[in-house]
Amino acid sequence: MFATPDPMRAALEAAGAAAAAGEVPVGAALVHQGQVIAVAGNAPRRLCDPTAHAEMRVIREGAALLGRERLEDCDLWVTLEPCAMCAGAIAHARIARLYYAAADAKGGAVEHGARVFAQATCHHRPEIYAGIAEREAGAMLREFFLARRG
Amino acid sequence: MFATPDPMRAALEAAGAAAAAGEVPVGAALVHQGQVIAVAGNAPRRLCDPTAHAEMRVIREGAALLGRERLEDCDLWVTLEPCAMCAGAIAHARIARLYYAAADAKGGAVEHGARVFAQATCHHRPEIYAGIAEREAGAMLREFFLARRG
Repeated sequence: MFATPDPMRAALEAAGAAAAAGEVPVGAALVHQGQVIAVAGNAPRRLCDPTAHAEMRVIREGAALLGRERLEDCDLWVTLEPCAMCAGAIAHARIARLYYAAADAKGGAVEHGARVFAQATCHHRPEIYAGIAEREAGAMLREFFLARRG
Repeated sequence: MFATPDPMRAALEAAGAAAAAGEVPVGAALVHQGQVIAVAGNAPRRLCDPTAHAEMRVIREGAALLGRERLEDCDLWVTLEPCAMCAGAIAHARIARLYYAAADAKGGAVEHGARVFAQATCHHRPEIYAGIAEREAGAMLREFFLARRG
């Protein structure tokens, strides 16, 4: 067994808190120079904001904290493969490295669907590491959707 | 000559104000039941927020005003073809109709690049109307980039 890196552990905890609040359980953490500077869960319902995915929330919070629009010295950790909106935001923010847990065949846009970073027109591609803690992240999502259907 | 519809006129004015503030000149307006409820220009630099495209700003403002995450009774008007981030947000928000002015071969993700709404996995496709006031919107962008290079 490998230990889960701290930023992914923080993201998983934020995903759990999102589920407890009735939101789809996805969490993210932003790391700047080795330190987690923002952690957030998915919250579109609670915030009445369709753009309030976990990735968007930590990018916005991190950029505000650092006082600039580009985060080329930051890494993003997230429990689910980013969608087209979040992948686009990651490219705009010039995130250095993207680490994600579970793949998302339905809504993902990194290795599925729009494959945002694989487009010739994509102006920035982060280094991408997938599959970290994917079992735990995937189990949380499956439980959430099973409970909603039940 | 056709007259430019009021929401696109408002979006063009917001694009002009963005240019005056040193931002790439793109503007957007959100219409709810025939009324413009939000107008904004592109502002990532000024707001230190890489997600602060015009479309994102009016979607977030409109959703906050209406107190819900879905805007299925709203139309979005924007002076430039939306990028992957904004097209994804438009799908998440369930925007009914998308009207845009200039096409964007470099950064657009509606008829170019990631073609977000054309993906089998896209969960919502707005009705799309392109080319409204495209000359005016395109000229504003060309002038801005020419001046920056000069």
